[in-house]
Amino acid sequence: MTVYLDDIPLPEALQRLDSALVKAGKDSILREEEIPLDEKAVGRITAAPIWAEISSPHYHSSAMDGFAVRSAETDGASETVPVKLKMDDQASYVDTGDPLPPWANAVIPIEQVEPIQEDGSLAENPRAPDLIRIRISIPPWKNVRPMGEDMVASQLVIPSGHILRPVDLGAIAGCGHHRITAAGKPRVAIIPTGTELIEIGQPAFPGDIIEYNSIVLAGQIEAWGGEPTRYPITEDDYSTILSRVEEAAGSHDLVLILAGSSAGSEDYTADVVNELGDLLVHGVAVRPGHPVIVGMIGEENKVPAVGVPGFPVSAALTGEIFVEPLLARWLGRSPRKPAELEATLTRKITSPAGDDDYVRVAVGEVGERVIAAPLSRGSGVITSLVRADGIMIIPRGSQGYPAGERVQVRLYRSPEEIRKTIFALGSHDLTLDLLAQHLSGFGRRLSSANLGSLGGLRALKRGHAHLAGSHLLDPASGEYNLSYIETYLPDLPVMVVALVGRVQGLFIREGNPEGIEGIADLNRPELSFINRQRGAGTRILLDYLLQQEGVDPGDVPGYDIEEYTHLTAAAAVASGRADTALGIQAAAEALDLDFIPLEHERYDLVIPLKFREDDLLEPLFTLLGDQGFKRAVGEIPGYDPSLMGEVIAVFD
Amino acid sequence: MTVYLDDIPLPEALQRLDSALVKAGKDSILREEEIPLDEKAVGRITAAPIWAEISSPHYHSSAMDGFAVRSAETDGASETVPVKLKMDDQASYVDTGDPLPPWANAVIPIEQVEPIQEDGSLAENPRAPDLIRIRISIPPWKNVRPMGEDMVASQLVIPSGHILRPVDLGAIAGCGHHRITAAGKPRVAIIPTGTELIEIGQPAFPGDIIEYNSIVLAGQIEAWGGEPTRYPITEDDYSTILSRVEEAAGSHDLVLILAGSSAGSEDYTADVVNELGDLLVHGVAVRPGHPVIVGMIGEENKVPAVGVPGFPVSAALTGEIFVEPLLARWLGRSPRKPAELEATLTRKITSPAGDDDYVRVAVGEVGERVIAAPLSRGSGVITSLVRADGIMIIPRGSQGYPAGERVQVRLYRSPEEIRKTIFALGSHDLTLDLLAQHLSGFGRRLSSANLGSLGGLRALKRGHAHLAGSHLLDPASGEYNLSYIETYLPDLPVMVVALVGRVQGLFIREGNPEGIEGIADLNRPELSFINRQRGAGTRILLDYLLQQEGVDPGDVPGYDIEEYTHLTAAAAVASGRADTALGIQAAAEALDLDFIPLEHERYDLVIPLKFREDDLLEPLFTLLGDQGFKRAVGEIPGYDPSLMGEVIAVFD
Repeated sequence: MTVYLDDIPLPEALQRLDSALVKAGKDSILREEEIPLDEKAVGRITAAPIWAEISSPHYHSSAMDGFAVRSAETDGASETVPVKLKMDDQASYVDTGDPLPPWANAVIPIEQVEPIQEDGSLAENPRAPDLIRIRISIPPWKNVRPMGEDMVASQLVIPSGHILRPVDLGAIAGCGHHRITAAGKPRVAIIPTGTELIEIGQPAFPGDIIEYNSIVLAGQIEAWGGEPTRYPITEDDYSTILSRVEEAAGSHDLVLILAGSSAGSEDYTADVVNELGDLLVHGVAVRPGHPVIVGMIGEENKVPAVGVPGFPVSAALTGEIFVEPLLARWLGRSPRKPAELEATLTRKITSPAGDDDYVRVAVGEVGERVIAAPLSRGSGVITSLVRADGIMIIPRGSQGYPAGERVQVRLYRSPEEIRKTIFALGSHDLTLDLLAQHLSGFGRRLSSANLGSLGGLRALKRGHAHLAGSHLLDPASGEYNLSYIETYLPDLPVMVVALVGRVQGLFIREGNPEGIEGIADLNRPELSFINRQRGAGTRILLDYLLQQEGVDPGDVPGYDIEEYTHLTAAAAVASGRADTALGIQAAAEALDLDFIPLEHERYDLVIPLKFREDDLLEPLFTLLGDQGFKRAVGEIPGYDPSLMGEVIAVFD
Repeated sequence: MTVYLDDIPLPEALQRLDSALVKAGKDSILREEEIPLDEKAVGRITAAPIWAEISSPHYHSSAMDGFAVRSAETDGASETVPVKLKMDDQASYVDTGDPLPPWANAVIPIEQVEPIQEDGSLAENPRAPDLIRIRISIPPWKNVRPMGEDMVASQLVIPSGHILRPVDLGAIAGCGHHRITAAGKPRVAIIPTGTELIEIGQPAFPGDIIEYNSIVLAGQIEAWGGEPTRYPITEDDYSTILSRVEEAAGSHDLVLILAGSSAGSEDYTADVVNELGDLLVHGVAVRPGHPVIVGMIGEENKVPAVGVPGFPVSAALTGEIFVEPLLARWLGRSPRKPAELEATLTRKITSPAGDDDYVRVAVGEVGERVIAAPLSRGSGVITSLVRADGIMIIPRGSQGYPAGERVQVRLYRSPEEIRKTIFALGSHDLTLDLLAQHLSGFGRRLSSANLGSLGGLRALKRGHAHLAGSHLLDPASGEYNLSYIETYLPDLPVMVVALVGRVQGLFIREGNPEGIEGIADLNRPELSFINRQRGAGTRILLDYLLQQEGVDPGDVPGYDIEEYTHLTAAAAVASGRADTALGIQAAAEALDLDFIPLEHERYDLVIPLKFREDDLLEPLFTLLGDQGFKRAVGEIPGYDPSLMGEVIAVFD
């Protein structure tokens, strides 16, 4: 029988967990512990307020190297009427930090003193003269750090629930503590389950899934102040999972059971939680991350358990949504609240009305506007989280937003990082990876989302990008990009800068088992082709080549199946998903494919003139003129950097 | 002979260090190391780009629980014209993540299938029927995660110089790595010097300085990605310091010598650096932190050394200014760039024109305005850094700014924390500490700077605070605050809410050795008094009491010496700096002083009406009505919370 999951709204799911925690007496700091006051305390959280034990300074302390004196005895001293003070009785040498003698109430800095002998001559040791002569009167308590200047015994120095920073440790030590009462780190067991899983570092055969969700979750827990325990992979066996979960609950504050949370043939997590305690939630109306399980396990000592979905994006978001607030509560701190930013959505996005939909977005500050470009929504695409600058949540009840909508984005990076991000939309090229790598050395990020060449020009028109990569062939002239810019960007002043020349051709499997000779073969019915998305320069090139050869696109099997990058098109051929595809030589080489070269093309960067002088893009222009970078690009097969950095045209 | 320090501008000092590092070949990543791919890698920095070893998925993977089929064989299937597919030949059950059989190119979800037996009856096991009947046609590659969907072998996954986050670890594992090439953590030796120093936890006698700069610096280095070694305290002995520094340089990348960097009688750091190598800088034009030393020590393997000034604020800022950028460079990452915010300065601030002056400020967002209130500028006052929300730098060449100036603040807290900060300026009361402690449980910070009661009202008038604590006695009426509000805030609608009743009186040392009976004694010439600052409610009360007793303020010894809080005034009496002071009973009790009660007064919060409904202040009102909080306040000696939360008056 097929089991269906619930669709519990997120607030309701969190509420059920909350009630269960309250009932179990686990809704606040789990335990306190005394930790030594040293550098490892940075990031720990105070579990009690810290009051000053002693004052700081704990005595009247000289703030200067000089002589402690009685202020009253300096009265009337001036340039013309110097005053002499006798050492020991009226003056005493003090270094900075030394206590004042009980009779003194001020310090004269050594530079303002003439140290002399009884006979009026200058003393040999300026710190041990017979007398000092002064020409300035010193008010009481001048150049003295009075007791309690910094902290007075009994005052509040650090509140509880405070995340300790380096300077806090100094203040805590300075008022007489050498230990800190901190919230104990919540212990979290992470149990990956699945017969198909393999540990990292093992050879991966088809069907093997490299188990890394436990590493991501352990990293999150570590970063959020918990103490993760990663269990070895447990195979899909009900009783093995049951006993391991039970054992983990005995020694941990929270148990995360990875995968097996859906309703497939080997999904045991819900049953395990049910058998060991109470299943509170099975299926939450969030996306990605729907098949989440929440329960409490154990008899007397009830321990929360979360069944974490197996797709990596779902797993990481389940950590953010369910685990982080739990750790925050147990640590006595506020839940992390990411910075939010309002941004303009680059394209229409639809969403199931029943779910809170977590959409990963790239964020860029382009001129005065903040832009959010939705990334891949696949829950298996962890790189969408790696590349994400933030998350946009489409709430339950909404079916999505149109392009141009102002949306709230929860940032994964600081607004400063966003400000240092060069936002490139348009055609994909491997050189952009290399460019990103080199730009990071200049304190810049290159965030590029792949929209195809035409998509890039449209993005520029809307003010959505700092630059667009483009390789649009004009069959009439044989020239690249220029006529398209005239058509699509009639009102936007831009410059066109050559990035790289590259070779386009057909990907074919090693040894050419299908005997493909060229474009004319693409309509062979037994072959399968894979195309690029609409608006991609490579697709426009294909249409031109098909036309030249008199091949009807409708006759090309697979013409309607689309990939978004050269590398994924090449991967489709390498994996046997397609027999051939059009793309650049570098992608063929990267995946050990054979290659039939067809065209030499120019790949340009189209840059609005208003960004030409922008400090943000300056390192980009530096790199385009850099011989080292040119050489690095030239080493990629099929790449010709000879024109790199040349201004092909300026439209103003 | 007195040695004077240099006044080298900061950029010049950094430049000298930079040149020396370049010469020594130490201006980039120091070393790379292979680290395991686990949760401890979070925060480490990649020393090389990470390219995908394998694709992810590395095979065509089912995205659903269902049946793998040939898309073409589902053509034409519809509600009315179902298609039957034979298991094994035409359909094969797959769980999510399973590889597709080589002949299949699509998956039909199990929910969309009728699993049947040869005889047309429903199969008992829905995953192992004889046939499946389908009423929908499935396009090629539907519900399949094709090989490379997430990452394609050879693509850039993570650039070098990237600070690893949990999700990055997943991506790195997913593309076939199990180790990471990371920048080695720079090893930093921290050598505290000074005969006057004691370790934390030891009893502190006058003249003993609790050594905590090494903890603060170690915490900074830890937080910035280095590996600190804290050496034990070295006494002020030239050859001992010399040999320890030499030893440390042999096993570390950077040596920090704490204190001894000035020109006092026991300041050996410059000589030590000079003897072991090259002294590059001795004295930098920054404040606090002037007596910084920079040098390179060692013969073949030159190691930078920094002499860190002994005052704690100077030491922490030296870490930020000199150590952090060095670690960043050695780790191959960008230096940390704190968020900046423009803020309005609450008061005039002067600065020596020759120095870059680092002024600690409290920052609050009050209505639409961001406010920066300068905190204590003493380089010994580490609590000024603890309390600081940011740093405002007054550059060399400027002598300061007037009140109301728009200044740039480098934030120590996130803009979100600033937004959650209730900004209180005005009179100081111990209850505010308790309030701060309780507010933190509601996700609010209370940032209070002490300006005295009148200063608080003026701050409200200028829109510089969310609320002001005030206890201003009107001698004519015997009432508190109301007449002052009428005078000082004629145009600002405010409410006056009682916080606490408290007892004011004279602090005297235990046993009353000076035989002080009351206000009438304050003009005894052998006594010393300590006053509060102008505008403080307590000073206004003093003036009233002196007038009543017919005592001339000019006859009170110490009338012109000012303290800013009850606790520091009490500390002045406790330490013998003064014989008596006027202040609240709670401060006397905190420091074990005797106390002569003189007045019962009311301490109110004055709150502009526009903040009454503000979500930010809501927890404050909650607390003012909370019995638990009332009880906690009532436990402080001399505090009467009976009126707490009562609205005394509304001016609108």
